[in-house]
Amino acid sequence: MQGQAQQQAYDRGITIFSPDGRLYQVEYAREAVKRGTASIGIRTAEGVVLAVDKRIRSPLLEGTSVEKLHKADNHIGIASAGHVADARQLIDFARRNAQTNRLRYGEPIGVETLTKEVTDHIQQYTQVGGARPFGVALIIGGIENGEPRLYETDPSGTPYEWKALAVGADRNEIQQYLEDNYDEGGDLDSGIVLALEALASVNDGSLSPDGLGMATVDAESEEYVELTKDEIGEYLDDQDLLDEGDDEDDADADEE
Amino acid sequence: MQGQAQQQAYDRGITIFSPDGRLYQVEYAREAVKRGTASIGIRTAEGVVLAVDKRIRSPLLEGTSVEKLHKADNHIGIASAGHVADARQLIDFARRNAQTNRLRYGEPIGVETLTKEVTDHIQQYTQVGGARPFGVALIIGGIENGEPRLYETDPSGTPYEWKALAVGADRNEIQQYLEDNYDEGGDLDSGIVLALEALASVNDGSLSPDGLGMATVDAESEEYVELTKDEIGEYLDDQDLLDEGDDEDDADADEE
Amino acid sequence: MQGQAQQQAYDRGITIFSPDGRLYQVEYAREAVKRGTASIGIRTAEGVVLAVDKRIRSPLLEGTSVEKLHKADNHIGIASAGHVADARQLIDFARRNAQTNRLRYGEPIGVETLTKEVTDHIQQYTQVGGARPFGVALIIGGIENGEPRLYETDPSGTPYEWKALAVGADRNEIQQYLEDNYDEGGDLDSGIVLALEALASVNDGSLSPDGLGMATVDAESEEYVELTKDEIGEYLDDQDLLDEGDDEDDADADEE
Amino acid sequence: MQGQAQQQAYDRGITIFSPDGRLYQVEYAREAVKRGTASIGIRTAEGVVLAVDKRIRSPLLEGTSVEKLHKADNHIGIASAGHVADARQLIDFARRNAQTNRLRYGEPIGVETLTKEVTDHIQQYTQVGGARPFGVALIIGGIENGEPRLYETDPSGTPYEWKALAVGADRNEIQQYLEDNYDEGGDLDSGIVLALEALASVNDGSLSPDGLGMATVDAESEEYVELTKDEIGEYLDDQDLLDEGDDEDDADADEE
Amino acid sequence: MQGQAQQQAYDRGITIFSPDGRLYQVEYAREAVKRGTASIGIRTAEGVVLAVDKRIRSPLLEGTSVEKLHKADNHIGIASAGHVADARQLIDFARRNAQTNRLRYGEPIGVETLTKEVTDHIQQYTQVGGARPFGVALIIGGIENGEPRLYETDPSGTPYEWKALAVGADRNEIQQYLEDNYDEGGDLDSGIVLALEALASVNDGSLSPDGLGMATVDAESEEYVELTKDEIGEYLDDQDLLDEGDDEDDADADEE
Amino acid sequence: MQGQAQQQAYDRGITIFSPDGRLYQVEYAREAVKRGTASIGIRTAEGVVLAVDKRIRSPLLEGTSVEKLHKADNHIGIASAGHVADARQLIDFARRNAQTNRLRYGEPIGVETLTKEVTDHIQQYTQVGGARPFGVALIIGGIENGEPRLYETDPSGTPYEWKALAVGADRNEIQQYLEDNYDEGGDLDSGIVLALEALASVNDGSLSPDGLGMATVDAESEEYVELTKDEIGEYLDDQDLLDEGDDEDDADADEE
Amino acid sequence: MQGQAQQQAYDRGITIFSPDGRLYQVEYAREAVKRGTASIGIRTAEGVVLAVDKRIRSPLLEGTSVEKLHKADNHIGIASAGHVADARQLIDFARRNAQTNRLRYGEPIGVETLTKEVTDHIQQYTQVGGARPFGVALIIGGIENGEPRLYETDPSGTPYEWKALAVGADRNEIQQYLEDNYDEGGDLDSGIVLALEALASVNDGSLSPDGLGMATVDAESEEYVELTKDEIGEYLDDQDLLDEGDDEDDADADEE
Repeated sequence: MQGQAQQQAYDRGITIFSPDGRLYQVEYAREAVKRGTASIGIRTAEGVVLAVDKRIRSPLLEGTSVEKLHKADNHIGIASAGHVADARQLIDFARRNAQTNRLRYGEPIGVETLTKEVTDHIQQYTQVGGARPFGVALIIGGIENGEPRLYETDPSGTPYEWKALAVGADRNEIQQYLEDNYDEGGDLDSGIVLALEALASVNDGSLSPDGLGMATVDAESEEYVELTKDEIGEYLDDQDLLDEGDDEDDADADEE
Repeated sequence: MQGQAQQQAYDRGITIFSPDGRLYQVEYAREAVKRGTASIGIRTAEGVVLAVDKRIRSPLLEGTSVEKLHKADNHIGIASAGHVADARQLIDFARRNAQTNRLRYGEPIGVETLTKEVTDHIQQYTQVGGARPFGVALIIGGIENGEPRLYETDPSGTPYEWKALAVGADRNEIQQYLEDNYDEGGDLDSGIVLALEALASVNDGSLSPDGLGMATVDAESEEYVELTKDEIGEYLDDQDLLDEGDDEDDADADEE
Repeated sequence: MQGQAQQQAYDRGITIFSPDGRLYQVEYAREAVKRGTASIGIRTAEGVVLAVDKRIRSPLLEGTSVEKLHKADNHIGIASAGHVADARQLIDFARRNAQTNRLRYGEPIGVETLTKEVTDHIQQYTQVGGARPFGVALIIGGIENGEPRLYETDPSGTPYEWKALAVGADRNEIQQYLEDNYDEGGDLDSGIVLALEALASVNDGSLSPDGLGMATVDAESEEYVELTKDEIGEYLDDQDLLDEGDDEDDADADEE
Repeated sequence: MQGQAQQQAYDRGITIFSPDGRLYQVEYAREAVKRGTASIGIRTAEGVVLAVDKRIRSPLLEGTSVEKLHKADNHIGIASAGHVADARQLIDFARRNAQTNRLRYGEPIGVETLTKEVTDHIQQYTQVGGARPFGVALIIGGIENGEPRLYETDPSGTPYEWKALAVGADRNEIQQYLEDNYDEGGDLDSGIVLALEALASVNDGSLSPDGLGMATVDAESEEYVELTKDEIGEYLDDQDLLDEGDDEDDADADEE
Repeated sequence: MQGQAQQQAYDRGITIFSPDGRLYQVEYAREAVKRGTASIGIRTAEGVVLAVDKRIRSPLLEGTSVEKLHKADNHIGIASAGHVADARQLIDFARRNAQTNRLRYGEPIGVETLTKEVTDHIQQYTQVGGARPFGVALIIGGIENGEPRLYETDPSGTPYEWKALAVGADRNEIQQYLEDNYDEGGDLDSGIVLALEALASVNDGSLSPDGLGMATVDAESEEYVELTKDEIGEYLDDQDLLDEGDDEDDADADEE
Repeated sequence: MQGQAQQQAYDRGITIFSPDGRLYQVEYAREAVKRGTASIGIRTAEGVVLAVDKRIRSPLLEGTSVEKLHKADNHIGIASAGHVADARQLIDFARRNAQTNRLRYGEPIGVETLTKEVTDHIQQYTQVGGARPFGVALIIGGIENGEPRLYETDPSGTPYEWKALAVGADRNEIQQYLEDNYDEGGDLDSGIVLALEALASVNDGSLSPDGLGMATVDAESEEYVELTKDEIGEYLDDQDLLDEGDDEDDADADEE
Repeated sequence: MQGQAQQQAYDRGITIFSPDGRLYQVEYAREAVKRGTASIGIRTAEGVVLAVDKRIRSPLLEGTSVEKLHKADNHIGIASAGHVADARQLIDFARRNAQTNRLRYGEPIGVETLTKEVTDHIQQYTQVGGARPFGVALIIGGIENGEPRLYETDPSGTPYEWKALAVGADRNEIQQYLEDNYDEGGDLDSGIVLALEALASVNDGSLSPDGLGMATVDAESEEYVELTKDEIGEYLDDQDLLDEGDDEDDADADEE
């Protein structure tokens, strides 16, 4: 009880430090990320793979409108998890910065540069008063100087580079699956398969294409490409992961 | 009791995260939507249908002045549910953006584009201090590139695309009715009938034209058209849904 | 008791949502309206009638200075109920907008347009921090395209159009009287009589001209005209509603 | 006790509505007015009379420096009651507006116009955050179009026109005296006498010229004139109201 | 206890009214004045006298640097009591206004004009949020149109004119002494003697020149002149008020 | 308990003083530094050495992306400990200032100058409201006029110059190790070895190159150079400090 | 207990008055000064002496970087005690003002003028909201018109002139020592010796040069000169005050 009272004293206001040096509002924003369905990023030798799990509240909802996969620029894709409306703000910020870079320097923005511009923007919302932190994590993947790169931004505004990672619900379980099965030298196809297997591992072993989104940026074309539902279904079928059942969820949440 | 005390700590201030990552002010704004009467949107092969239930406090009140149906542009209509005065602000915002698009680009604004400009505007009121969120949900329907499109905006600022949806009071029951009866290939007429049947399903099976509003945007003409009270009455009569009885409600509320 | 504690948590700050989606500050502003004496608006076939009940604290107070009837433009009158000083702000706002319309477009402002400009202004005070809502309701009546129009603005910023309505003290009783006795096809005279009878119905059946204000805007002349005390007295006399007794009230209130 | 706790919840912050629609900060500002000594205004057929009671803390205090009577323009005087420093702000505001009117329109400002400019200014301090209301009431008297006019401004920003009124301490008793003895057709002299008698009625029947201030604006000259201590003494002597005794009061208050 | 709880509710925030119409922050600022040592002003027929008591914390402290006597302009001096740093702000404000007056109008500023500019400035800090009131009282003395004038400003922003007054510690006792012994027709010398006697009356009957400051503005020269320590000592010696003993006070206060 | 209640009163708001003169928010920010892994700076006769310990959450995380070593300018490096996103803001600030110095004065910025510009920036966040302090400590090392210089910035904004220091976790133990073993006249190699030994002393005597970062700025070249993982491994092997084991840490923290 | 509760009510917010007229935030800032080690200023016939005691946390810390002695201009030095980062802000402010004075008027700034510009700046932080007071005291010493001058600034913004003074830890004891031993006619050397003896009197009678800083501004050269560690050691040796022992202090404080 003492712990709870102590905690309440620091988490009401805008982000200030607690006596043990934590920023509760940032930690709670991270909880908002966990409330969203999982997103996965995998870096392969041939490019990056992004995969997202979607919560389809109703069969009448157009699954494609559940925005978790975003094209930031020709050569960069972003998968998000957490508060959808917050994600849109960061995606818009990223797109504007990518465009500005092309205009100013006549070349595509680097994946690392873009990531850090986004995280610096996020940090401001954790230090300066008058606003709350962003309740979303992003996986930013793309090609920089011919090399696949994969980054994470979290609600504190810290950038990390990964070989493969998961954000959102069941993060720890999926991350463990990735660590156990990741092969750095794999091709794009193996990355897609790994992503689907990892998602299936926390979904009773099967998935429906309706509730999934996937995209790749391959190192050769340097183009962000989203997979169609049929393509995803084919991969699932090949891996014996296809679930045709009803997958609805009637939660009324802001997070994905 | 613990739950309530914990909750109170996070829902007083402007929108900040609770320890479990929720934004209570946004969730309470969603309650304001539920306090309003239902609105329905249905996408048919021939166009979109909007239908709204109105609370007529007195026979001396002009039902047409209860604003739940709005023309945003020639080719786009909006139905709202929740706080009426908030809805007006968003409708004005949408109209200005639609006009600006025509001026700048010489062409009608896309339904998706307009929806996302509205939701990004809504999101700002959930993150930056000094204002409360909007207590209203919108159904934005129209024609884009010859295709009917139907979107929802909610108080968090998340956009969703739907085949058919309900917002406001009895949302879950009406949505269930729509899921059970929706036919994607139907014509406008069948959409109008479905909307009326869905509303009637939560109103003891009958409706009065005085308490209803309906509009369509058909894919051919790309024109927003509101149905007259007589037209609505005819549809109700045809479907044996007509209620001639007294339908007053003396609640003194800000929501519709 | 639980209810009261819960309520207190949401009604202290600037207008934020309560867990059930209500805006307490707006509801309390509506209480300020009820603290004021009644105002009535009636739309007849020939024009609109505005009638206001005034609280005369002392025989030395000039009743005409108790401002509840206002000319907004030649063709539009406004009756208010609630916080007098707040009403003056909105009246000034309405007058400026009416004048601006004449200057910009060379024609009188529409009654509906004016009403919605006022309600949009009111809404801002319920959403953006740093100010309280307006504690006043307005009845805006006038002629638009030759037709009598009658609107209400309430503290939430919602506009309504009415055939006849009451705001302020005893609203429900007077509104019931109006519903029972309103005749849409009546002339201005019958509207004046109905307004006086409705006010008398909650005043022991008699009224004093000193505590009353009346105005009409008839559809032909399109001119706002206030009735003199004698004219009002004559109407009262004709209807056997005249009260010559002492009508003072020593409440020390800001509302009328 | 419940009442007190409930009250405390609404009177701490800047002016917001209480659940019963009251603005406590405005009501407390009205208490500040009552803490000041009385001021009286009387409208006679020949002009207006202003009379003020002053609290003289020490025989070494120059009574003339206790500011309760102010010349706003040649033809308008103002008597105040309540917080002295707040009164000075409003008087300055009134003087600037009177001067501006002369410069812009080449004619003296109307008494009603000036009053309403002052009350609209006062209202702002009751609605917009970041400041407290003015703790002062003004009696504004002068000549407009040859006619004597007498107005009151109160802390809510409501304007009232009076034949005769009192503000400040013992308001109710003095107002009753005025109601019992006011004669609308009286001359300036009778107004001066009535004012002194009314003040004496709450002062054990006698007054000292040192603690009084009086001014008139007569309808013919349209000039604000302050009475000298001798002139006041003569009136008191004539009416057998003269008190030569010690009248000090060592309260240490901001109100007069 | 009820009284204390009630009081606490109103004195925490920036200056708002308490239920009985008081401004606690202003009253507390007045306590800060009382925490300072006494200052005295005396108006004589020949000019004004200012005298200040100083708290000398240590024999190593330069008594002249304890700022309680200030020259505002050639013809105006100011003695302060209370928060020293606040006094400096007001003195600077007064000096700037005096200089501006000379530049604009080519003549020395009036004592009353200057006083009221200062009090209006003080009032702002009691009404508008974001700052606390000034914790200091000033005695402003000088020559205006050949006449000695003596004013007081207090933390509420109220101006008073005096024949003789004391502010700061022991105000009431010293003021009583002044009332008992003041002679309006006295010369400057008698004013100096009265000031010293009044201060001595609350200091066991004797004073040290080290802890005193004195200044005069005589009506003929219209020049502010500070007395030297020797001159003060001579006066004390003549009146048998000289104390050679140790007068240190090790309080660690911001007030003088 | 008393202590805790007293403390809570001062650490909630933005940085204000506690009764004993402490700034709790600054002290809590210092706790955020301690939550980060250790960083070390060592000044040798030949140049400065920076060494950082990193927390590698997963084998799939790219250790190089855990940003604790930063190049501020050619001749200056910075090691950080604490909140990573805050560190990035300060590093950007430092880089901009270094560049500006080169542009304005055509020469590299001094290490002391740069440090003090950073600490003055940090101090602002501890005094002016509306933001929290920076939760990070920096070690700024470089060459100034041919001499190695080593500085620390802490969350209060105080600059210190050191011969050798540690910040972050286990600061006291590592600092003790440095004090016991530091040799002012050593070369860069000896500095690198001392840093590794000091880190190993709190890590069970062994370290993995994956979790380490090292950089030097030698006095001759005046160039910031980061050591490769292999180079670090070689040093560890030479000193018999190499740990090949699993070094993961699944804490989910914002600090490094 | 009553006292503590009462106190808590006033010391949380930004500087407002307590019921007894105190500014707790200023008093707490003064506690921050006492948390710093002592600084001493002595005015001699030949010039001023500044001496500071430093807390050296570690033998690896460069004692010279502990900033307590500052050159404000050629002819003015400043010693500080309290919050180091706050001191730096005021020193920068003082330096800018000194430079501006040289540029504008072509002559060195007066010591008194500079002091008062600093104290007026400090006062603002005690009256206007949005920032906390400065937690530092300064001793400003220099030559003005050939005369040595010595001033103190404290957190309230009050300026004092001294012959000799101490600020910071053990202020009262050191001040007593100075009062007992100060000789106004001494030369610089005697001032240096007195400062060291005074510091030693609260340090078990001996001092180490490492933990000391000293500077003089002599009246002839008008130049600020810092003594070297060797020079200080020589003085200590001469006076038999030299301590060669370990003087570390591992407090982790922001004050010096």
